[in-house]
Amino acid sequence: MRTIDWDEGAIVIVDQTALPGELRLLRLTSVDELIGAIQRLAVRGAPALGVAGAMGVALIAQHAEIGPRAGAPGSADGEALAPRIAALRAARPTATNLAWGVDRAAAFLSQGAERVLAEALAVRDEDEAASRRMGLRGADLLRELVRGGEGEDGAPARPLRLLTHCNTGALAAVTWGTALGVARALLDQGDLGEVIATETRPLLQGARLTVWELREMGAPHRLIVDGAGPSVMARGLVDAIIVGADRICANGDVANKVGTYSLALGAARAGLPFVVVAPESSVDMDTPSGDQVAIEDRPDDEVTGFRGTHTAPDGTVAINPAFDVTPHDLITAIVTDRRVVRLDRGEDLARAPLSFALA
Amino acid sequence: MRTIDWDEGAIVIVDQTALPGELRLLRLTSVDELIGAIQRLAVRGAPALGVAGAMGVALIAQHAEIGPRAGAPGSADGEALAPRIAALRAARPTATNLAWGVDRAAAFLSQGAERVLAEALAVRDEDEAASRRMGLRGADLLRELVRGGEGEDGAPARPLRLLTHCNTGALAAVTWGTALGVARALLDQGDLGEVIATETRPLLQGARLTVWELREMGAPHRLIVDGAGPSVMARGLVDAIIVGADRICANGDVANKVGTYSLALGAARAGLPFVVVAPESSVDMDTPSGDQVAIEDRPDDEVTGFRGTHTAPDGTVAINPAFDVTPHDLITAIVTDRRVVRLDRGEDLARAPLSFALA
Repeated sequence: MRTIDWDEGAIVIVDQTALPGELRLLRLTSVDELIGAIQRLAVRGAPALGVAGAMGVALIAQHAEIGPRAGAPGSADGEALAPRIAALRAARPTATNLAWGVDRAAAFLSQGAERVLAEALAVRDEDEAASRRMGLRGADLLRELVRGGEGEDGAPARPLRLLTHCNTGALAAVTWGTALGVARALLDQGDLGEVIATETRPLLQGARLTVWELREMGAPHRLIVDGAGPSVMARGLVDAIIVGADRICANGDVANKVGTYSLALGAARAGLPFVVVAPESSVDMDTPSGDQVAIEDRPDDEVTGFRGTHTAPDGTVAINPAFDVTPHDLITAIVTDRRVVRLDRGEDLARAPLSFALA
Repeated sequence: MRTIDWDEGAIVIVDQTALPGELRLLRLTSVDELIGAIQRLAVRGAPALGVAGAMGVALIAQHAEIGPRAGAPGSADGEALAPRIAALRAARPTATNLAWGVDRAAAFLSQGAERVLAEALAVRDEDEAASRRMGLRGADLLRELVRGGEGEDGAPARPLRLLTHCNTGALAAVTWGTALGVARALLDQGDLGEVIATETRPLLQGARLTVWELREMGAPHRLIVDGAGPSVMARGLVDAIIVGADRICANGDVANKVGTYSLALGAARAGLPFVVVAPESSVDMDTPSGDQVAIEDRPDDEVTGFRGTHTAPDGTVAINPAFDVTPHDLITAIVTDRRVVRLDRGEDLARAPLSFALA
């Protein structure tokens, strides 16, 4: 099953706010519905947002009943569509993939709604292929980072024990996912010992979504509170940390779910590999470093309570950044669908070559 | 109001599981009731546990109707009481103050129940005085660490912005508290800008108790999720981090609420002072380093849910350490009721002199 798909003029998504209690599908037939779903995180995760952005433009094009040339820059239709496209593009400011997906589909508006839809479906299909490539590349890299040359000829090595944050699985993409796709690849290869999932406050994507996915795929797993991450590493319960990315800056700084930076500090102190897994479309060479990333501030009530349960006293004010920035010097490697960039060896995004091989 | 007190043969505590919704008092008349209250964290916090331990022995002595010499080692009564004292002493393994308070009162069992009670009341009164001394010492130290010699003759300096974890206020002690007592002293001195409180999963002592106390004392404050701590420091929103301690080892390693270590890593990276505030009774010179501290593992359902709201799928297994260990090299200074030990200057607990002055 795909987390996001197109079905007869509508976007169909798994409603991630209902999991793990209920597996509910939503049909979105207007861009306003889609923007609402993005903002309340019914659809979330960098790769899924890329597909959502592209399919959202397909929705806009379909409703405008545009023909060839109608959406071209300067034409009346093109101008009429621009505000809706801009609103979709800005629905969440930190994730670069949303804007990337919007732009990719919008580039075909002048060729009509059918061509826009074809592009959106191509984004979807490419994401599936990219997930698989990231999973396999990441699995190979982790074996190398954790084991080096050891045990290759001797007794079978102990399966890898990973720690991950937020949800970067199939629910964050179309299938498989990014960081959690690496865990899936290792599981398929018989080389996954355990995944320790952080619950990921405030919205508990780890507890609700990642644990649900790990159970569905039959992977051994345990759950921790976010604050326990660095101490679990210090206690020797983890071999490597894998996370996704909402935006990868030109210098290798990574914006990702709040709490990621704290885990990277813990990994560096424990001497463990800290690996970022994200599609090439999350790389934003126009943003020089993490200092230039706009961090989305979300509502106070996500922090002061949970799902209707009030915890802090009424009226408590929160600071609720959805993301944080992990500086590049804390990152061992970035794995994309096109390359592995070993920051720990001084490689960088500007020079590391892209591969277009399919494996 | 005292968080824990003695009233006509009973221990009276503020039930911390009911806050912030309700300010409810519990009367505990047997040691079994007390052990239950300690284990479900109705009474918690290192200093309060010290008083609870001493008062618990007073309860045991009162029920045994012991007279002088009846509880002496080797006497029939002394042996009869030993299992109950041992059970109380072990109700929570990581906090050293509980055992310290038990031992201090139990040393007077041979002199009868009245003498034991007098010792327990002395522990209570000393805790109040100790809180005030820690608050004032800590406030002075923070000014020195944050401002150095700056601004002493010029314009008034900007009031201090602190970040704290868990609850270390009056609710964790008898009055005032440890780390949060420092915030209270700064507030009284007109020198507190803001306290940023971490919510402190899994039991949310920060969101429930610290925010409630800060509001009661009229201190400006905001709430964050635990994972946001290091990034809030990196963004320049904080001048210093203050935390309590459940056990301070001989080498300066500190066991405290899970998540403390992660904040210490964030402070070190941001170049911010990280100050531990705890009574001298939390110093355990018999435990050489953090490696020897028994870390209490608590039930899975604290992590898999949220005050009765189920978050993770049914049956999810958790790792739920209540505490973590912060290595001494990440700690700027330890403030007790008797001294300030500047670990950042190479001072250590074995050699730093104790002061018995009252200020």
